[in-house]
This record gives sequence, structure tokens and C-alpha cells, in this order.
Amino acid sequence: MISFKRLLIGRPLKSNELGEQKINKTKALAILSSDALSSVAYGPEQILLVLITLGTAAYWYSVPIAAGVLVLLIALILSYRQIIFAYPHGGGAYVVSMKNLGVNSGLIAGGSLLVDYILTVAVSVSAGTDAITSAFPALHSYNILISIVFVIFITILNLRGVTESASILAYPVYLFVVALFIMIGVGMFQVLTGKVPAELHSPIGTPIQGVTLFLLLRAFASGSSALTGVEAISNAIPNFKDPAPNNAAKTLIAMGILLAILFTGIVSLAYFYGTSPKENVTVVSQIAENIFGRNFMYYFIQGTTALILILAANTGYTAFPLLAVNLAKDKFIPRMFTVRGDRLGYSNGIIILALLSIILIIAFQGKTEQLIPLYAVGVFIPFTLSQTGMIFKWLREKPAGWTYKLIINAIGALICFIVTIMFFITKFLQVWPVLVFIPPIVYFFYKIKNHYDSVGEQLRIQNLEERDDISGNVIIVPVAGITRVVKNSLNYAKSLNPDKVIAVYVAFNREEEKQFEEKWNKWQSDIRLVTLHSQYRSIIQPLTKFIDTVEHKASESNYRVTVVIPQFIVKKGWHNILHNQSSLLIKTYLLYRRNVVVATVPYRFKA
Amino acid sequence: MISFKRLLIGRPLKSNELGEQKINKTKALAILSSDALSSVAYGPEQILLVLITLGTAAYWYSVPIAAGVLVLLIALILSYRQIIFAYPHGGGAYVVSMKNLGVNSGLIAGGSLLVDYILTVAVSVSAGTDAITSAFPALHSYNILISIVFVIFITILNLRGVTESASILAYPVYLFVVALFIMIGVGMFQVLTGKVPAELHSPIGTPIQGVTLFLLLRAFASGSSALTGVEAISNAIPNFKDPAPNNAAKTLIAMGILLAILFTGIVSLAYFYGTSPKENVTVVSQIAENIFGRNFMYYFIQGTTALILILAANTGYTAFPLLAVNLAKDKFIPRMFTVRGDRLGYSNGIIILALLSIILIIAFQGKTEQLIPLYAVGVFIPFTLSQTGMIFKWLREKPAGWTYKLIINAIGALICFIVTIMFFITKFLQVWPVLVFIPPIVYFFYKIKNHYDSVGEQLRIQNLEERDDISGNVIIVPVAGITRVVKNSLNYAKSLNPDKVIAVYVAFNREEEKQFEEKWNKWQSDIRLVTLHSQYRSIIQPLTKFIDTVEHKASESNYRVTVVIPQFIVKKGWHNILHNQSSLLIKTYLLYRRNVVVATVPYRFKA
Repeated sequence: MISFKRLLIGRPLKSNELGEQKINKTKALAILSSDALSSVAYGPEQILLVLITLGTAAYWYSVPIAAGVLVLLIALILSYRQIIFAYPHGGGAYVVSMKNLGVNSGLIAGGSLLVDYILTVAVSVSAGTDAITSAFPALHSYNILISIVFVIFITILNLRGVTESASILAYPVYLFVVALFIMIGVGMFQVLTGKVPAELHSPIGTPIQGVTLFLLLRAFASGSSALTGVEAISNAIPNFKDPAPNNAAKTLIAMGILLAILFTGIVSLAYFYGTSPKENVTVVSQIAENIFGRNFMYYFIQGTTALILILAANTGYTAFPLLAVNLAKDKFIPRMFTVRGDRLGYSNGIIILALLSIILIIAFQGKTEQLIPLYAVGVFIPFTLSQTGMIFKWLREKPAGWTYKLIINAIGALICFIVTIMFFITKFLQVWPVLVFIPPIVYFFYKIKNHYDSVGEQLRIQNLEERDDISGNVIIVPVAGITRVVKNSLNYAKSLNPDKVIAVYVAFNREEEKQFEEKWNKWQSDIRLVTLHSQYRSIIQPLTKFIDTVEHKASESNYRVTVVIPQFIVKKGWHNILHNQSSLLIKTYLLYRRNVVVATVPYRFKA
Repeated sequence: MISFKRLLIGRPLKSNELGEQKINKTKALAILSSDALSSVAYGPEQILLVLITLGTAAYWYSVPIAAGVLVLLIALILSYRQIIFAYPHGGGAYVVSMKNLGVNSGLIAGGSLLVDYILTVAVSVSAGTDAITSAFPALHSYNILISIVFVIFITILNLRGVTESASILAYPVYLFVVALFIMIGVGMFQVLTGKVPAELHSPIGTPIQGVTLFLLLRAFASGSSALTGVEAISNAIPNFKDPAPNNAAKTLIAMGILLAILFTGIVSLAYFYGTSPKENVTVVSQIAENIFGRNFMYYFIQGTTALILILAANTGYTAFPLLAVNLAKDKFIPRMFTVRGDRLGYSNGIIILALLSIILIIAFQGKTEQLIPLYAVGVFIPFTLSQTGMIFKWLREKPAGWTYKLIINAIGALICFIVTIMFFITKFLQVWPVLVFIPPIVYFFYKIKNHYDSVGEQLRIQNLEERDDISGNVIIVPVAGITRVVKNSLNYAKSLNPDKVIAVYVAFNREEEKQFEEKWNKWQSDIRLVTLHSQYRSIIQPLTKFIDTVEHKASESNYRVTVVIPQFIVKKGWHNILHNQSSLLIKTYLLYRRNVVVATVPYRFKA
């Protein structure tokens, strides 16, 4: 078992090896950007899907809408850059909202993001699997299985630790970027040299019947799903090599530039080639086929797209455990999320994330397309909160040049707020679960916090001098017969020098009772024997009744009651089913229901 | 929880209420015969399914074959009648084989029967469900679900206790018998009054091309599947009212007569009406339709047939737990099968049977037809063994009139042996699992027996005077900080007056270590503190290493080591996930891997 675990996740690392696990900018860009960059695979298509209701002539609107998304992107990048320097210990939207807007806002942001990272994993892996099984239709019936295998694969990589993951995960991200750069380069060259017929697209400014501001805003909201994932870097600053904030900020800018180029490029190519969204072929796939035909480059682009979608899930694996640590340190979620595993990753967070996303994949049968708007709105709520938080921060602190900073965050907050509202108005049927799930999550955050606070208060020792010693001990030994196990337990009980040892025997009929008492007197006459009578073949019932009586009397004179329970330790695991596990039952029952100490005395079988 | 259980299975019964649960002959006939009687629903059809390969003219052979089956039935009934009186405590084939042929034969019989009772439940319930869903095709896609619901229903009835089950289960069995009696009566009346055209059947003795002894024996073997279940009564003698053997013998004869009449009647009607087996309509259904048309009587016969098939499963519920008790008393299977539940039934056997048959139903998707030959051969192996055993018994004991008894059992043994061999020769593809599963089952019987024998030897106290007292105690208290929980554990340790109390603290770095030691000296300077250093964030590893050292030294001078572990007892179940269950882990680890006593001190939270 241990060696299998070691094979899977590698040798345990010492706590002081932590430094080595920090990542440099190049790897960080790959690890933390796959989510954002992969969004260009579906973002532009979302815009066209709205415009198509006006007819293909309306496609030119995608250009001004893309410009709007770019403005939003720039606002987000600049705003998060400010957050990185202001909060160098990470935590992103959760920390910023908590510090500047109060606990409620912080918990809403934290809760939204936790759920969102699970959606990131489920949506990205399912979409990536779809891309693969579209290329190889024979695999289509194994969609869910393949998705789950991918989730398990990414989970193992993350349990091994983030550096080694990065080495493996960096290549596909860069290959994807290179592949799309080539496609955009060759495509724009064809457009500029006039190889693409001008009739394919309507000129910008063509008047369109029935166009409304509502529809354009809806297209804009849809297109902004291409920006999911830009917050990942600001949450993961502690993973960067020193100086972490500077490195994180540079990585953020680099990611922003890449995302802007890819998004603009794809929207432009889609416009010039007059690409319409189709049910079974993605827009990127159509563009690639138009430019290259079905040759190596086409499959290379499709392959890297599929890979980066699957790897986008990895962003969730980096962000979720770190956010969980922040929430756990503030006592809003269980403490176990702060524990580092053998390889120094936050294994509990990683495993919980894997389980929940696998459940989501199974529940939605791998068809998670309808989750995309939910996913996007779950991102824009914390976006809005964190930027609003920054506005309050600048207004309060007023550092040098604060008006400039304030304006950037205010623009960002406003756009994000509008996008969020647009999602609720235009896609309510898909995003309502946010309204249903966030309040109970926040409620549980508070419940957990209250519990920890109350427990901490109970455990605190105010006065180191304070004494409350125990006056004496009564030891009860339930005996099942005259055997070596019983002798073993009795010897132990006597050796503790307690004030009293009581042996208890449960008899099922009078004759048995008498026989046992006679035998006992020949064997252990120095220990008082109490025999109890059971009419219902239950041992626990008369035993607990007796223990209650003793405990009641003992507590009056500050005595403690200890029950000695033997535990058979068998040589082979399967032997356990051969022994009535009644001792385990009695033990658990007494511990949880009665105020007694349970001393478990092991008795080892030789075979 | 307790009240839900009570609602389901009723109030607990006292041990001395056992007598009331014994059953009278009328009820016993219903409970223990449903398996055997329901077999007539498929037995005659099995014969025709073999003869059809020779053409419909060959159907007349079903009459002499049925006569052969009747001879076998008479031999079995007479033989089992002798077994009932010879072994009035029940156990049937298992006990008879064990006593007369040795342990191996006994275990083969016992193992076959255990598996067979599981098959009884799975096959009968599935077949009954098929009958229902054939009548109501809309339910067909819920076949497995319906089967499982039936299994659960029968399980609950049996957990409630056998008397109450009998009241409910007796009616359908008698209704089935009445329904078939009416059908046979009306049908034979029509035949005798010449209302059935003579051309429908070929006269007995018509020469048939290609008929072989092999084929006829195969038809005979198939037809003998109608006899599955006749052993049930001899296994269940302890359930009868006194005088149990006489009552059981009378019930057996009654069942034999009913079975003979029903079997002969159906075979005869099938012959006279020239009924051919069809894929979707059973032979019984065809006969009923021929005689009555599709009116009330037809549905009454179909309905009671479906019901009795489902109730046949109940035979398994009566026989399996009783056989399990016999095997468990002989220490071949886990002791837990001898424990009576709240309602005095052997609940563990009932529940295990339910689980295994549900697994079979799911694994075979409710299509258990191919299990019928396996089921039949699993019955005929113990039949053969028990009757061979009786031959040895008569030869050994030679009681009055033993030659008559010997001849009966010898004939029975021979026919059963031939039937068993015929199954292996003619249906090997369906019955091979018997050869694969029985040997490992017998092997495990021996393994379990060996374990219990060796354990019993180890636990036995030869000399009541023998003493091996413990010289002293060392108590180790792992401490996690300066809190009330730790104080609670330390107070307890000190109160036991041991020779030494050692507090152990695991530090993750040197600074923390120093700080803690300083605080400790101000707080509990009278208790020795040992601080351990952990490089891998693990508490268990350094702790067990330390405990090993202490334990090694202690055992040299016959000292025992006790480790005091606190256990948080939370107010609400879900609070458990808020506390690292590391104490539970440490406890289990120490108990199973190290030779120390673990004293668990509960610490109750107020909220």
C-alpha cells in the first residue's frame, strides 16, 4: 500500500524542501494561464451564437463587441496587477473583499470561487474530452470514463507537487499558443494579400434590422466568458519564486497580452472568413480548416486545443487548495485544508476538488455545456466584489497616485457588475443556481466559524496555576468467560492500583449465571464480580445501565470510571470477520454516549 | 433510527418468547413447500424443451419421463422422511453427509446448499418478476428494481420473525394449489368427456426417428429440476412445533403428494392438449388459456404462479440461516451466524442472503434463466451425498428393518447420482461454475475452522491458579498544546498512580520546540516532557518510534505501556469533520501495530 502510494506520488518531502517547490515565471505562465487562454476556444463562438439571431450580416458587430471585451480585459489585468502588489500573500477576490467590504462580501466571493474552481475542472475536462471524442467518434460512448481518467491523472500530478506538474503541463500550453499564433499569422496574411474573398463578410457599419442594445449587451456578456480564469495568478502569489509579487505581476501582464492577441486574432479571422457557428464543428476548427485544409496543422491545432482545455482544469487544482487554506485559516472551512501532504501540496483540497468535479461530471453525464454561463457568472461575482473592494481601499488609504488607481478599479467594477447583471437578465434559466447555493454556503461558513470559536474558547486555559485533580478511579472490566483474554484485562486493571476493580458478567439465564459465579470464586476471588441478566440477548443494554449507576455514584466524589475492553488483534485482515466485533461496538457506544474512559487492551493471536 | 427499525421489524422479543415462534404443520407446509411446488411451473416445460428437438410427435415420451421423475420424487420423499427421524435437529444433507461420509463430503454438501439457497432467492424472485412484467409489459424496464424490492420485502418479513411471515405467506401458496387443482380438474374433465380433439397428441408408443437414450436421460435430468426444494423441510425441523420430527415428516409427505399431483397433472394436460413450449408464453399459461380462455381463471392462475415463484424465495430465507447456524456451530463459518436478532431470527444469515441474492440479480440483470441448471445441479449434489450417507448409516447401525431402508436410500442415491452426472454431461456450459466455486468454499471452511481451533487453544486457561501479574505501568500522554483537553488527559494519567507519566510533544521546528518547553515548565513542571522533532509533518511517525523505545525497555521489566489519547465528543454529527480525526488514526495505528494499551479519554464540547 505504502509503496503503491510512493510510486504514484513520489517520496515524501521534508518541510524545509518547500522552497524548491516554488515556480518561476515561465512555468507559472503555463500553469496559471491555461484556464484563461483556453477560454478563447469558446469565447468568440459565444458572441456569434448571439449575433446569428440577427442574420449573418450582423457578424460585423463582433468586432466592436470584441473591442469591448478587450477593454474589460485590460481593466481586469490592470486591476488585478494592483491587487497583487496590495495583497502579496494571495487570496485574490476573497482576501480583497473580506478586508475592504466586510465578512459577508468576502464569504460570497470565497464561496463563489470555491464552487467555480470545481466547475472549472468539470467543464474544462468535459470540453476537452468532447474535442477528443469528436476527432475519434468510436470513443464517444466512453466520454464520462475518459473525463474521469483525466481528472484522476491531473489529481495525481498535483499530489506529486506543483513543480513536477509544471514541467509536464507547460509544453501543451506553449504548443497551443504557438499553434494559434501560426494560424492567426497565416490567416491574416491570406486576408491582407486578398486571398480571402471580400464577399465573405459584410463591411463594418452595415445597418442591421432589429438590432437592440439588449442583444448587443447579451453578446458582450457571452463573449466575456473568454475572460474566465484571469484571476488565477493573483490567488497563487505564494507559489511564485521571490520576489513573488513582481514575478506574479509580470506573469499577469504576459498572460493578458497573449489572451488579447489570441482573442482578437480569432474574432478577426472569424469575421473575415464569415464563419458561422455550427452544431458539431467549433468556430476555431472551421477557421483552421479554411486556412490549412484538413492537413497536419489542422490536427495540431485541434489536438493542442483539446489538451489545453483539459489542462485548464489544472488551474482549479492550483487555485482551489490555496483559497481553501485562506478560508480554513480564517476558520470558515474545516482545518484539514491547511495540512500539507507528503509532497507538500495541500492534499485534502486537491482530493476534495477531484471528488466533487468527478461527481459533477457523472451527474451531468459529461454534458457540461449548460454549466458555462453558471461558471462565468460565478467568476464575475468575485471580480465585481474584489474591484469594488479596491475602490474602498483607495478611498480609505489614499496612497500616492490613488485617483488613477481608483479610476481603473472603478471602471473594472462597473463593467464586471454590468456583465454579472446581464448574465442574470439574459441567461437566468442557467445561472439561477448561484442564488440558491451561495446563501447556504455562506451560512455554513458562519456555522463552522462559530463552532471553532466556541471550541477555542472552551479549550483555552486562562490560569496556568488552576488545578482540578481527580480524586480516584473505578475500573470496570466486562468479562465474557474464563479465558486468557479476560485474565489479561484483569491483570492490567489491577496493575493500575485503582480504588476499585469491578468485573461484570452478562448472563442470559439463571443457570449460566450461577455456574459462572462458582467458577469465578475459584479463580479471581479477590475481584468483585457483578452478574447482570439480559432478556434480549443484548450485552450493551444491561452493561451501559450498570455503568450509568457506577458513573453516577463516582462523579459525586470526583472519581473517574474506566472501562477496560479487550481487542483481539488478528494476524490476517480477514480474520476480523471471524470475531464478533462487539468490543468495537461497545467501545464506540460507551465513548460517545457515556462519560467514561475506555482503555483498550490488545490481545494478539499467534495465528 | 431505533423507532424506524422497530416500525420495520417490530418490538424486540425476549429470549424466552422463542417457543411462540415455532410453526404448525399447515403453516410449515406453506412456508417450506413454496420452492418445491413452484418448480412445477417450469419443470414440465424443461422436459418438452428437450423433446421438441425430435419433433412434436415425440411429446408422448414426456409421460414415461414424468413417471421416472415421480419415482425419483417418491425415493426422495421416503429418503428424507428417514433423515428427519434419524436427525431430528435438522441440518439435512450437511449433517447427514458430515456424520456418515466425513468432513469433506459434509462441507461439499453444506457449501453447495449455501450457494444454492442464494440461487433459490435470485432465480425465484427474477422468474416471478418476469411473470408479472409479462402481464404488464409497461413495467418491463423496471425488472431489476422490482426484483430487488421483492427481496427487500421478503427480508423484512423474515427479520420480523417466521410466524408472522407464515401468516402472510401461507395464503398465496394455498391459492396456487387450489388454482392448479381447479385447472387440472376442469382440464381432465374436458379430456375425459372427449372435448379435446384426439389429433392434438400422438398416441403413447408412436415410434420416433432419432430417439436416443442420451436424449431421454437429458429430458429426465431437465424434468428433475421440478424437484428442487424438497430438502427444505428436513433442514428446518427445529422450526416445527413439538413433536417436531413427526410434524415435519407429515408435512413432507403432504408436500410430496401435492407435488406429485401437480406435476403429473400438468404433464398430462400438456400431453393431451399437445402443448409446445414457446419463447414468450409458458406452458402453464398456454394450458390455462386452452382450458379457460383469457378470463378471470386464467389471470388467477398466472397471478398465483407469479406469487408463488416470488414466495419460493422465502424457502431460502428459512433454510439458509439454519444451515448457517449448523456450519457456524461447527466453526466452519463466522460465529456471527449463530446470533439471534431482536425478533429471534438469525438476522445475520437473513441479511447476508438478501445482499448476495441482490448482487446476483444485479450481476445477471435479472435474466437468471441460465442459472436454473446450475441451481438444479447444486441441489442434486447434496441429494446424492445425503442419501449415500444414509446407506453408510444403515450398513453401520443395522437397525430393525434396515434392508428396506437401505434399498430406498440406495435407489435414491443412484438416481440422484445419475441426474447429477447427466447435468454435467448434457449442460456442462451452464454448470461448470460448481466445479470452480465449491473447492475454494470448502478450502475457506477449513481455514476458518483452523483459525477458531487455534484461537480456542490460545485462550484456554489450563491452570486456574497460574498468575502472571504486571510489575508496573508507564503512561505516555501525547500533548498537542496547552489546552483543557491536554489538562484533562494529564489529570487522568496522574490519577492512575502509575510508576511514570511521560508527556510527548511533536514539534515541527526548533523554535516552536523551545517555546513549548518553556511554557510547559511553568505549567506542568512535575511531569516529564519529551519533545520530538518531525521533518515530515507527520505526528504518528516520531510518536511510534518513541513509543517503541519505551515499550522495549518497559517489557524487559514486565511493565506495561499505556498511551492516553483524548477524543473530542462533538454535539452534532457534522462537527466531526471540523476536527482532525488524527486521534482516531493514532489510536487505531497504535493498537494494531504496537503492543500498548490505548486509553481513550472523552472530551465533550458544549457546542
